[in-house]
Amino acid sequence: MSEFTTHKVVRFGHVDPAGIAYFPRIYEFLHEAFEELWERHVGARYDRLILERRLGFPLVHSQVDFKGPLHFGDRALVRVTCFKLGHASLGLRYRFEVDGEERVHARMITACIDMDRLKSVPMPAEFRQAFERIRETEVA
Amino acid sequence: MSEFTTHKVVRFGHVDPAGIAYFPRIYEFLHEAFEELWERHVGARYDRLILERRLGFPLVHSQVDFKGPLHFGDRALVRVTCFKLGHASLGLRYRFEVDGEERVHARMITACIDMDRLKSVPMPAEFRQAFERIRETEVA
Amino acid sequence: MSEFTTHKVVRFGHVDPAGIAYFPRIYEFLHEAFEELWERHVGARYDRLILERRLGFPLVHSQVDFKGPLHFGDRALVRVTCFKLGHASLGLRYRFEVDGEERVHARMITACIDMDRLKSVPMPAEFRQAFERIRETEVA
Amino acid sequence: MSEFTTHKVVRFGHVDPAGIAYFPRIYEFLHEAFEELWERHVGARYDRLILERRLGFPLVHSQVDFKGPLHFGDRALVRVTCFKLGHASLGLRYRFEVDGEERVHARMITACIDMDRLKSVPMPAEFRQAFERIRETEVA
Repeated sequence: MSEFTTHKVVRFGHVDPAGIAYFPRIYEFLHEAFEELWERHVGARYDRLILERRLGFPLVHSQVDFKGPLHFGDRALVRVTCFKLGHASLGLRYRFEVDGEERVHARMITACIDMDRLKSVPMPAEFRQAFERIRETEVA
Repeated sequence: MSEFTTHKVVRFGHVDPAGIAYFPRIYEFLHEAFEELWERHVGARYDRLILERRLGFPLVHSQVDFKGPLHFGDRALVRVTCFKLGHASLGLRYRFEVDGEERVHARMITACIDMDRLKSVPMPAEFRQAFERIRETEVA
Repeated sequence: MSEFTTHKVVRFGHVDPAGIAYFPRIYEFLHEAFEELWERHVGARYDRLILERRLGFPLVHSQVDFKGPLHFGDRALVRVTCFKLGHASLGLRYRFEVDGEERVHARMITACIDMDRLKSVPMPAEFRQAFERIRETEVA
Repeated sequence: MSEFTTHKVVRFGHVDPAGIAYFPRIYEFLHEAFEELWERHVGARYDRLILERRLGFPLVHSQVDFKGPLHFGDRALVRVTCFKLGHASLGLRYRFEVDGEERVHARMITACIDMDRLKSVPMPAEFRQAFERIRETEVA
């Protein structure tokens, strides 16, 4: 099994008065990591996917464990794998690590839709292959 | 069983190019509803809780189903009930409805911590009572 | 001269590690106050203006003085007046007050555009009248 | 005269229903560029400046011209120069370019403060030198 990795820096504006990343900002990190995955791993720029190909990936279900805080200045390593690859749905797991310790563990399921008809469509084969490459093995 | 209700208006800045609320914004709505719950239902302003009483409620686990889109201009009714009231943890359920239809269903579990020592502390009794009043009955 | 007033509450998520409202959040407050002005003073919901009437008001110029901090928990009174009412442009002044003291003073100039052609169009007469009612007198 | 440059990618979550970057997001870009300037040009991580050295740079005045839209997917080049270097204040100019065309032109003046006493303090000499290196010449 392979994985996609990227980094997120916790900036001044992400941090709350308690000194840690305000949780809605972590969902922004998740979407940014998703856009980077499309561009760098799948090989399709997310803006073109939406604007030209008219494919969208609205979130259907999210389940997130906040295991430890992300502090101002932290450089989190984000590891992305695919735990579900349905006909028209995609489940991605994101693990944020700081100093080798898992801080956030997220499972996000998105639908694959036609943006003009707002209807579910099958994931195109060329993209499916890219997600297969980061797919988790059964035992995981 | 009682519940706390508030409203959220989907503003221009909450909406993405697909015309629906960008999901990290929905987590901001969740935190705002939480702050309003403290002020209007529990009777304690959240800023004073944090700054003076030094109690905080960091998110530990969140599970959200996005059942339908929130569109620009939607006025969502948010209904909040308590599904878990542990010694030092609090589970709140938030349901967003537009036109009587459920669009978002969120379960958020927060810890109750002492902000100076960053350690788990029992939920003070006067607050516990307020959450008991919106607690879900067993069968729910 | 009359004015439009609204309130903004500084929430947990608006505040930075320095304990004061992170400035990009203040620009969100400005846009929210603008949307409330449309709805409550002009009498046109901003979402319908954009989505149905296809009129938009992109920002062309902004000039903001941060005279004092907005703290977590502050309830700012926002006073809005019109300092410029051109053929196809609108200049609004926003003053944020806490405890009778001015904290933020913003001047925002927006164009009035046709959203389909993305071209400047004259401000419709019925809206112009509403802005006339909060227009600043010459000496101001 | 030299300058500091960085890039900002306009992501899905930055864009509004009109298809262009929602202006409060542009102020987030400005702060992120400011943090990158500290780290990569000045050689001091902004989080350590705030948390360890207890120096902060709250915004005092901002003046921004929005000359053209930033669209979803745009990769803006951001050029930063210093137009004001006072005893305890710093004026930075940010120009966002897409396809060689200026889209946003911002002038941001921040104070230099001691975060514990919340009082103005002189800019330390080692930082002043770094800003001198990107200082605009008189004629500019």
